[in-house]
Amino acid sequence: MIIARILGTVVASQKDERLSGKKLMIVKPLNLDGTDQSGYVVAVDTVGAGFHEKVLVVAGSSARLAEGNKDVPIDAAIIGVIDSFDFVQN
Amino acid sequence: MIIARILGTVVASQKDERLSGKKLMIVKPLNLDGTDQSGYVVAVDTVGAGFHEKVLVVAGSSARLAEGNKDVPIDAAIIGVIDSFDFVQN
Amino acid sequence: MIIARILGTVVASQKDERLSGKKLMIVKPLNLDGTDQSGYVVAVDTVGAGFHEKVLVVAGSSARLAEGNKDVPIDAAIIGVIDSFDFVQN
Amino acid sequence: MIIARILGTVVASQKDERLSGKKLMIVKPLNLDGTDQSGYVVAVDTVGAGFHEKVLVVAGSSARLAEGNKDVPIDAAIIGVIDSFDFVQN
Amino acid sequence: MIIARILGTVVASQKDERLSGKKLMIVKPLNLDGTDQSGYVVAVDTVGAGFHEKVLVVAGSSARLAEGNKDVPIDAAIIGVIDSFDFVQN
Repeated sequence: MIIARILGTVVASQKDERLSGKKLMIVKPLNLDGTDQSGYVVAVDTVGAGFHEKVLVVAGSSARLAEGNKDVPIDAAIIGVIDSFDFVQN
Repeated sequence: MIIARILGTVVASQKDERLSGKKLMIVKPLNLDGTDQSGYVVAVDTVGAGFHEKVLVVAGSSARLAEGNKDVPIDAAIIGVIDSFDFVQN
Repeated sequence: MIIARILGTVVASQKDERLSGKKLMIVKPLNLDGTDQSGYVVAVDTVGAGFHEKVLVVAGSSARLAEGNKDVPIDAAIIGVIDSFDFVQN
Repeated sequence: MIIARILGTVVASQKDERLSGKKLMIVKPLNLDGTDQSGYVVAVDTVGAGFHEKVLVVAGSSARLAEGNKDVPIDAAIIGVIDSFDFVQN
Repeated sequence: MIIARILGTVVASQKDERLSGKKLMIVKPLNLDGTDQSGYVVAVDTVGAGFHEKVLVVAGSSARLAEGNKDVPIDAAIIGVIDSFDFVQN
């Protein structure tokens, strides 16, 4: 999984039926020092995360294991809101 | 998922039977500022997207969950036409 | 999927039983202008593609959905011979 | 799999139910000379690994095969504590 | 799949039970000219490959399809010893 922050949203009215009602969020992967990585991912929010919150994002087939996404054609899901993370670099 | 735009099509007459009738689109991943990323992906269109439209592309095994692609040997599918996307960089 | 061209073959006599009889092809991913990308992939040919032909290659678990490869331990398969591809860069 | 070392932990109280009780570890991939690679991964510890230990990390759908993680939405898991690794560069 | 050579081994006594008895090999991906690529992968040997041999490595969920690895939490497996590979660059 990666640590990311929520940057925005995607609106798509013409889409796969199973995406109906899903919140498509643009998330930006973060470095451990809190700075942005390059790139972004569109992930389905499954935990009611808010803008700019740091979130845990799962990628690949496991995104479909996130609550309410069985058989939904997604490859990334927000599965947690991060309270804090601690690490010792050395 | 990624945001991409439709660039072109691939024609292949000698192919896996389950690809029969599938629209093979060349899509270009986009940055959030709307510029092209390098590289491209060949994805099956499952939502009737048009040329140059911005689309949502799912990759990996989840592409097979896109409408009508169960057990089809694909690793990327267009699952939505993007009306708009909004984000706040900072 | 990616567009690639067939560059060569791999011979392995000591191998997983289910690879028996499979054609292991070395393929080179192509840019849209027809030039080579760096790197290569070893993919199982499932459509009878010939040397130097442009082919469509699927990666990941979906390679096992290619004709005749159910439960075969492969992560890349040639699933089409490309007749042509068209795109408009801008 | 990759060789990594445990750098820290992630705390998330609002999360997918199946993540309940899982230890979310920040791990840093290592080069073979023992130096850090760039980047990091958040992986679920399934073997009781300790801080700064070198561990074996599995990614993708196979992370769900790690002990106790069936149907848990994760894409990386610590599946071993590494005692030693040996290699000859040339 | 990729072409790699066997560089070394990983020893881990505290590990997922299903890894018991598996040979964890450090393999180095090779370029087509036989030189090393950067990076490495830890893969389970399933064909009795020897040190410095060139091998075929499968990644992702398909590694679990390699002989004897059903439901084992691995994402890379050695599935063949390469006798030779031939290619024409141009």
